[in-house]
Amino acid sequence: MRLPKEIIVPGFRAAGTHCGIKRSGAPDLALVVSDRPCVSAAVFTRNKVAAAPVVWGKALRTRSRLRGIVVNSGNANACTGAAGIEAVRRTSRAAGEALGLPADSLLIGSTGVIGVPLPVEKIVAALPGLAARLSPKGIPGAGEAIRTTDAFAKRGIRTVRAGGRAITIGAIAKGAGMIAPNMGTMLAYAFTDAALTPADARLLLREAADASFNRIVVDGDTSTNDTAALFANGACGLSPLRGKDLDAFRKALTSLLLDLALMIVRDGEGATRVVRLSVTGARSDADAAKAARAAASSPLVKTAVYGADLNWGRVIAALGRAGIAVDPMKISMRFAGETLLRRGMRPDPAAQRRAAPKIRKEAYAIDVDLGLGNGSDHVYFSDLTEKYVRINSGYRS
Amino acid sequence: MRLPKEIIVPGFRAAGTHCGIKRSGAPDLALVVSDRPCVSAAVFTRNKVAAAPVVWGKALRTRSRLRGIVVNSGNANACTGAAGIEAVRRTSRAAGEALGLPADSLLIGSTGVIGVPLPVEKIVAALPGLAARLSPKGIPGAGEAIRTTDAFAKRGIRTVRAGGRAITIGAIAKGAGMIAPNMGTMLAYAFTDAALTPADARLLLREAADASFNRIVVDGDTSTNDTAALFANGACGLSPLRGKDLDAFRKALTSLLLDLALMIVRDGEGATRVVRLSVTGARSDADAAKAARAAASSPLVKTAVYGADLNWGRVIAALGRAGIAVDPMKISMRFAGETLLRRGMRPDPAAQRRAAPKIRKEAYAIDVDLGLGNGSDHVYFSDLTEKYVRINSGYRS
Repeated sequence: MRLPKEIIVPGFRAAGTHCGIKRSGAPDLALVVSDRPCVSAAVFTRNKVAAAPVVWGKALRTRSRLRGIVVNSGNANACTGAAGIEAVRRTSRAAGEALGLPADSLLIGSTGVIGVPLPVEKIVAALPGLAARLSPKGIPGAGEAIRTTDAFAKRGIRTVRAGGRAITIGAIAKGAGMIAPNMGTMLAYAFTDAALTPADARLLLREAADASFNRIVVDGDTSTNDTAALFANGACGLSPLRGKDLDAFRKALTSLLLDLALMIVRDGEGATRVVRLSVTGARSDADAAKAARAAASSPLVKTAVYGADLNWGRVIAALGRAGIAVDPMKISMRFAGETLLRRGMRPDPAAQRRAAPKIRKEAYAIDVDLGLGNGSDHVYFSDLTEKYVRINSGYRS
Repeated sequence: MRLPKEIIVPGFRAAGTHCGIKRSGAPDLALVVSDRPCVSAAVFTRNKVAAAPVVWGKALRTRSRLRGIVVNSGNANACTGAAGIEAVRRTSRAAGEALGLPADSLLIGSTGVIGVPLPVEKIVAALPGLAARLSPKGIPGAGEAIRTTDAFAKRGIRTVRAGGRAITIGAIAKGAGMIAPNMGTMLAYAFTDAALTPADARLLLREAADASFNRIVVDGDTSTNDTAALFANGACGLSPLRGKDLDAFRKALTSLLLDLALMIVRDGEGATRVVRLSVTGARSDADAAKAARAAASSPLVKTAVYGADLNWGRVIAALGRAGIAVDPMKISMRFAGETLLRRGMRPDPAAQRRAAPKIRKEAYAIDVDLGLGNGSDHVYFSDLTEKYVRINSGYRS
């Protein structure tokens, strides 16, 4: 796993600190600020119970020219009622004052336990000191401060050539499981000195999120706080990217966010393996997506992956309840490239023997062909282990 | 838990034996036969990948006057293609010969591992001996022979007064998790000497199954083999039950099947607790059902129950992704009778303290009021433990 030590994006400064939310004393407040207004875009959780910062962020999104983010970890500010919204408002105002900017210049994020009031006074008290420590080298430190149960920090960087210049995209993320981090969240923030039109920023972020964060399954639960955002400050001095340059940027952004998404699923709480599950031959792409997600979130499939069990029967059983057209006698399936099932016919014992050692690796592929049409989709999922249960049954007690 | 030692239903004889499917030498073949033709009804899994005996049983169902069941454990005969159907046909023919009855007189069932050919010759070889050992006291022994990973056998009995006589309903079941037994199945068979019309048999079984087996959630996976069936042989000598008598029978059957369903969920693989989760105040009953099932199958809710964590936030997060109308500021929630959330307002610390010891018990209730309408529903679910993972990751390796 490539984890760059330095992430410097021209025009952005950042810092992280411990403001007092986490009892452990670990960093729990992050600030990333651009020296000029950004074109920005954000996508949020589809969970109907949205945390206060998500409610706030969705309203903000329509205003342009944000400067960056302030994010706390250790408390999700979710299910906190009117007080939760007021806490976001106070954070936003205090961040503006500390930076000499108008209120509402920053996107606010929170991650951590649900249903506990956010100790916003600790954030407000810490912001001036944090603002004073902002540094161009501070992005990894900000990334550290947004971790909750993450076993490791997640960050990445890409460089793109455009108009004869080098454009940088840096990103930080947290989450030990999108679609169900135990403490409530997947967060990802990307920063670039590219210039983008607002429409391109929205489109590229949505595309990249769909190809990355929307394809990872840890346990099928979606969080109240999930957020991915992109900030483009144009510090590279070029006019908004177009044509080939925009395309190169799009590819770099997607590759960067996919890297971060795979880090999240690899850090899936207690996970030991990551499987890329592809479904082809579905009646439609939507059917393929349903099938892939049903199999990837099945506890029986996930425990079989943990146990290095070539249990294609559990995959088939999950497909059967996915609510899509399935004919067992048309299904073919490969584990780690070995065909275990061909049009419903039972496995070749030799293929089973060949596949057995391959599915003990940290990452492999399961490829399902439904044999019914041209629809396809794929997801990445982690296994379900005793450690997942320990993490999620014990963290508050 | 009441587990009656004797289950004698007039006119039914039964036996169980080891025919050689299970390597452990445990009983793996059950036979229950009525001395006269029965009015019967059956409900089957909705999984589109149905095992061979389910495909067969659905076709049989339209013919009337079955005599009973023959069920093997240790192999689900699922995903076994044309050979699987042929194995059911051979079992049916061999059972008929052993009993001196026409082929197709019995409902066939299988439970166990998916995707492995059924060693039908072992069943065929064992049937004559098993038929010779049929006994009125054999129903519990038949119940033992349908177990797979069940930690304990499941059976029950009820007596109903009708027309001045005592009518008996006896039932056996297996499953350590409906909606996802690791070895593929929930099976339940009820036998009565009542006389029922075919229409009443169908209606009563469907009602009772809906109030029992369709309300238990272990891990959200549905099996390829799930079956519940009712056999009424009329040996009590009364004409088909009507009016008050039928109503008394209906209540007894529902109560019996609910007992068995709760035994299954209590035996949910690795489970330590059972929670009755009710949802009221939904826009519709269908919304309430979706909400209850989303929360009951959430790994995060289930691990919190295991950890005796009063984590209503995870319940809310699950409600938010259930695909129904939800307003967090209208939700009220009780754990073990203590109100932790009232119309979205945060918990009273004293209620939390009172609830804490109550949710360490083996069974308690979580009551959710969505505050939006009159729709309601409820389910029973087990917690998610390290033992669940061990059972499901290791059983074939």
